[in-house]
Amino acid sequence: MSVKLVKNSIGRMVPTEINGKKSVPFQGVGKYHPDYRKFAPKVATCADFPDDGNKLVDDLKTALIKAGLKDGMTISTHHHFRNGDLVANQIFKIASDLGIKDLVWYPSASFPCHEPILEYLENGTINHIEGSMNGVLGRFVSEGNMKGTGVLRSHGGRYQAVQDGDVQIDIAVLAAPIADPFGNANGVKGPSACGLLGFALADSQYADKVIIVTDHLIDFPCIPWQIHGNYVDYVVKVDKVGIPEKIISGTTRITKSPDRLLMAEMTAKLCQEAGLIKDGFSFQAGAGGTSLAIADFFAKIMRKENIKAKFARGGSNKYLVQMLEDGLVEYILDGQTFDLDGVRSMRDNPNHVDTSPFTSYNYHGKGNFASFIDIVILGATEVDVNFNANVNTHSDGYLLHGIGGWQNCLFGRNVILPIPLFRDRIPVIRDEVTTVTGPGELIDIIVTERGIAINPLRKDLLEKLKDSNLPIKTIEELKEEAEKICGKPVLPEFGDDIVAVIKWVDGTIIDSVRKVIK
Amino acid sequence: MSVKLVKNSIGRMVPTEINGKKSVPFQGVGKYHPDYRKFAPKVATCADFPDDGNKLVDDLKTALIKAGLKDGMTISTHHHFRNGDLVANQIFKIASDLGIKDLVWYPSASFPCHEPILEYLENGTINHIEGSMNGVLGRFVSEGNMKGTGVLRSHGGRYQAVQDGDVQIDIAVLAAPIADPFGNANGVKGPSACGLLGFALADSQYADKVIIVTDHLIDFPCIPWQIHGNYVDYVVKVDKVGIPEKIISGTTRITKSPDRLLMAEMTAKLCQEAGLIKDGFSFQAGAGGTSLAIADFFAKIMRKENIKAKFARGGSNKYLVQMLEDGLVEYILDGQTFDLDGVRSMRDNPNHVDTSPFTSYNYHGKGNFASFIDIVILGATEVDVNFNANVNTHSDGYLLHGIGGWQNCLFGRNVILPIPLFRDRIPVIRDEVTTVTGPGELIDIIVTERGIAINPLRKDLLEKLKDSNLPIKTIEELKEEAEKICGKPVLPEFGDDIVAVIKWVDGTIIDSVRKVIK
Repeated sequence: MSVKLVKNSIGRMVPTEINGKKSVPFQGVGKYHPDYRKFAPKVATCADFPDDGNKLVDDLKTALIKAGLKDGMTISTHHHFRNGDLVANQIFKIASDLGIKDLVWYPSASFPCHEPILEYLENGTINHIEGSMNGVLGRFVSEGNMKGTGVLRSHGGRYQAVQDGDVQIDIAVLAAPIADPFGNANGVKGPSACGLLGFALADSQYADKVIIVTDHLIDFPCIPWQIHGNYVDYVVKVDKVGIPEKIISGTTRITKSPDRLLMAEMTAKLCQEAGLIKDGFSFQAGAGGTSLAIADFFAKIMRKENIKAKFARGGSNKYLVQMLEDGLVEYILDGQTFDLDGVRSMRDNPNHVDTSPFTSYNYHGKGNFASFIDIVILGATEVDVNFNANVNTHSDGYLLHGIGGWQNCLFGRNVILPIPLFRDRIPVIRDEVTTVTGPGELIDIIVTERGIAINPLRKDLLEKLKDSNLPIKTIEELKEEAEKICGKPVLPEFGDDIVAVIKWVDGTIIDSVRKVIK
Repeated sequence: MSVKLVKNSIGRMVPTEINGKKSVPFQGVGKYHPDYRKFAPKVATCADFPDDGNKLVDDLKTALIKAGLKDGMTISTHHHFRNGDLVANQIFKIASDLGIKDLVWYPSASFPCHEPILEYLENGTINHIEGSMNGVLGRFVSEGNMKGTGVLRSHGGRYQAVQDGDVQIDIAVLAAPIADPFGNANGVKGPSACGLLGFALADSQYADKVIIVTDHLIDFPCIPWQIHGNYVDYVVKVDKVGIPEKIISGTTRITKSPDRLLMAEMTAKLCQEAGLIKDGFSFQAGAGGTSLAIADFFAKIMRKENIKAKFARGGSNKYLVQMLEDGLVEYILDGQTFDLDGVRSMRDNPNHVDTSPFTSYNYHGKGNFASFIDIVILGATEVDVNFNANVNTHSDGYLLHGIGGWQNCLFGRNVILPIPLFRDRIPVIRDEVTTVTGPGELIDIIVTERGIAINPLRKDLLEKLKDSNLPIKTIEELKEEAEKICGKPVLPEFGDDIVAVIKWVDGTIIDSVRKVIK
């Protein structure tokens, strides 16, 4: 790819054009002002839809053909079935069999179960992916094998891109655990219940054609109608949309690693000492083993001091549901359920609220609630001395993770990254991150097993914690400590080709991912 | 007004231009095909909104000024507070005091409590109303006193008009019984709880600026968020948004009139004989005394024959809630609550579902559920021998009622109008209705106290009921019977001026309302 590159406001070289479309370089947090209107989908009419509301067609192939599947289209899917998704691969198998070329796949995330997509990238059915490119797909991209350029967006950025018309979805194929023939659908009921369908909201609202695929068809009305049939063109009944055991993935147990438990305990203590754990506070923890441990430490402090949180931002799991049921948190505002307790709670408890990237994360709205969360716990593959962090590439340069809601959550009031000082003897704190996923100005605290660094911009936190017994150091001290143990890290070798770009929450380009030279 | 008139497909003369904008004449049910895109609101950015989500401003005047209130703007309100609304009059008082001129008021309905609006129509603050013009407002319009031309739309047509950009709302002022400072709001909680805010959905989604006015402000998150704060610009706290006793209006008692009870009984019997009351059926009854009596007869039949309805379309009230709680209906799909039992049930019962004109009525969507309702009971001021019906004007020519969901409900499978043969010795069945609100092809059955007429288009119903003991007659026979008793009706005298138009569900003009000569 020989496109013009420019240096963006954070010093990264990014292309001015991606897959033939103009792009805008990152200009700083809150600096880019959109001066245009939302994408305007075509107006439909009831005259073109059956009076009895029955939109069932024979199978997915029929639905795709009726939806006008053709070369170059953008096809979207959601990832609420996670590693148990059975629909995405089928779409591209059908397209491949029909000889369709150059599709864009626009998933809200991809998983190891999507390995078969490699075949369709190789045979030209898919031109490129705009969405997370994990594991084998990331490796394929990193080695320069994808025809088009990958585009990674946060969950909020995905909503923004669709709302703003940066991505125009031709056909959305939305797997649903339960649906009626009109296309109303939800994720809380049916044998493959996965909780909610919030990641599919933008797709349903803005796609030209919307196909619901379900394995549990009931008579109208399918309530709650998380997806409105009024946006849906076709409904397909299949034997199985997802493998329930794999839907419920992610680490669901509290870590037993002494180092990680230490980080979790320090994180909780720091929040307590800084006065962040107080009546009416809010937090987001996430699903990893360390995060679960932190939530557990929070629960202990809250029980002991009789503190109640106003809300917790989920990814929900049994620990968070327990806190809700015990009255430690008043609401769970949930973006995705990580286990069956989360699904049950969302179905039965009106205070366990399903959210979407629109309510929680869309930066091109009139606010979103990510910025009111008091304590936000996130991970990173690398952090640099300017507090910039990377969640997409590993230090060997390979693109191996999506962004998820990570960038969006950076807008929380106190963003804490509990990360080990090194992984496999490779330092995690660096002079410069391999890829900037999020700018340092939004990252407040780094907690490692060997010390805590507070962003100098947060004078208030430094002041509050000045008499703390916690091992508070500078980020440079942490970096040196890591390098003392592991040595200076060896940098990977990159080619010139840009294989993917990382979008910021406002649709601008914050960094480029280059081809890895093996 | 000297605009060009054309004859539409139902033979009515309608203007080709209304208030300076081109309009399309009615072309027949399902004949008009929109070939354009939805209205595209401006893209907002979180950078322009407070990180803590606090959008509170001092008062409504401040909010209106911040929203940029100026001459010629379109200001919208919803009518969930019905005759207890305390917000709409305030808006125009403020605008009048500020010397603003030529506003368009776009309410989802108006009520007697809006009589003070007359002053602002008279002093030039308001140019015209697009919405129901009832009672004194209707009389004012009918006598040719409104500067601009009135435009009446159904609830679904109002959503369509906003979605399609026919009406571009500059400022939506949305009264809410409960809200948080971010603007999330609902109608089921708070001292002025009115049930739901569905009529305000289009306004929140598409208006340039959105102001929430509440008398019950709580901390984030206000759950359920029937209105999403992500669409809201400003929040105003007032002492009182509505008078609770007047919010709950409408006839809420079963009729005691022997004639009306007879109509109700005949309607129920007819539905039973035609096989419409069967397991899994659906119905919409409404809130009048006759409708309540019909629902009561339905309930008796259902109990006796052990029949359960899949869903009832509300307007909900205590009778319908009782049927839900007794298991006679599985779901209430509710558009507005008519009493406190409706509010309580919607708040507490997940099978009592709040709907919006988007899910229920919007004709420019991919279907809507109004067309799947088996039995639809509606009223009319007049019906003609072609089954065309009028709900807007009285036989004296005066515009006295809005359309409500009436046009939208005509798409139900069996539309029944139980109406008296005459009112105040004026025949209700006529050669031609004063105003066509709905075309006869969608109206199936007229039930009067003196006989039933079935639309000849419904050969299936005529066949099913051919051996019935019910007094089935032709519509002409009913008309003659009325005229035998009351004499030929005297027709009102009209001027040339078109004072208002009636829009069909697709935005085309089905009829004009002319100035009445007193």
